[in-house]
Amino acid sequence: MSEPALDGLIDALRRLPGVGVKSAQRMAFHLLQHDREGARRLAGALTEAVQRTRHCARCHTFTEGEVCATCEDPRRNPQLLCVVETPADQAALERSGSYQGLYFVLMGRISPLDGIGVVDIGAAALLERAADGVVQEVILATGFSAEGEVTAHALAAALRARGLKVTRLARGVPAGSELEYVDLGTIAYAMGDRR
Amino acid sequence: MSEPALDGLIDALRRLPGVGVKSAQRMAFHLLQHDREGARRLAGALTEAVQRTRHCARCHTFTEGEVCATCEDPRRNPQLLCVVETPADQAALERSGSYQGLYFVLMGRISPLDGIGVVDIGAAALLERAADGVVQEVILATGFSAEGEVTAHALAAALRARGLKVTRLARGVPAGSELEYVDLGTIAYAMGDRR
Repeated sequence: MSEPALDGLIDALRRLPGVGVKSAQRMAFHLLQHDREGARRLAGALTEAVQRTRHCARCHTFTEGEVCATCEDPRRNPQLLCVVETPADQAALERSGSYQGLYFVLMGRISPLDGIGVVDIGAAALLERAADGVVQEVILATGFSAEGEVTAHALAAALRARGLKVTRLARGVPAGSELEYVDLGTIAYAMGDRR
Repeated sequence: MSEPALDGLIDALRRLPGVGVKSAQRMAFHLLQHDREGARRLAGALTEAVQRTRHCARCHTFTEGEVCATCEDPRRNPQLLCVVETPADQAALERSGSYQGLYFVLMGRISPLDGIGVVDIGAAALLERAADGVVQEVILATGFSAEGEVTAHALAAALRARGLKVTRLARGVPAGSELEYVDLGTIAYAMGDRR
């Protein structure tokens, strides 16, 4: 079997994160065999999302306007700026209902192995945003992976050099965990940061 | 965050097999943040595949013509008809290089739990195809899952009732396997079908 349109679809699906050649094949066959309406809908949704979604001029999250709803919300505390790696992380923080300040969304995180440095993640825009004279505290909420830690470390240094107060999300035992199943590094952090 | 175009894209991605809400979010964010060109390409590939790909009039596999290249290949043995669940299974058999006959691709397999019966998988078209007077042997190459076995059983009965010779792919120990790691059911089949 060598059908150009089908092969093209499999190639295009493979560019999605987490999709290898087998999954791409399965998706393409499924769409063509059982869900052509879904394929048409996906094509339309892709086109529309690319056309309509852009980055908020202030915080760089996804928005359809010039500035996102969160940045324009007068009930938000403009003295707090929380830095996250992705819009998905921002969504998780929002769902937690624990934060009422504003956000800044990086273009990912520093990853030397992938050639992604501090310039590539939009650090310059963050420094400019944080220096608006209103922000009092920058909360670094990048992940606690190696890359997330490196990112937080580099940003903290640059922000502190500009006289800003910088904090980091607390590390510790996850809610609902039994201690015996928590990894030792986490327990050590939780002990060191006990309160 | 509630951005209609972004939410629409996440919804559309969730309809892909094996993609849950978290993966769909990650895909959508990745495309919009890092690969807008990939999103445009995928939209085009979807549209083109839906428009150009149809089912072969003889074997029901995907093709861009009226009849697929395999069915039109004069070097193929038209006396052998191999029945598979999906075009992906057909591709696997082709890669094995072990078969020179023709194919018939079902619309999946019988699955009572999902309400998919013998009518839904295109059995009527298979019976018509197999009764062309040329086919001498129908090889049932549906999977060896419970659903694949049920499908093979139902099709074998219907095909034999029409006087056709019906065979099934051999079960046994996979090539390259150590016996101690092979499951007991497979060993029992391999012993029973020893040659």
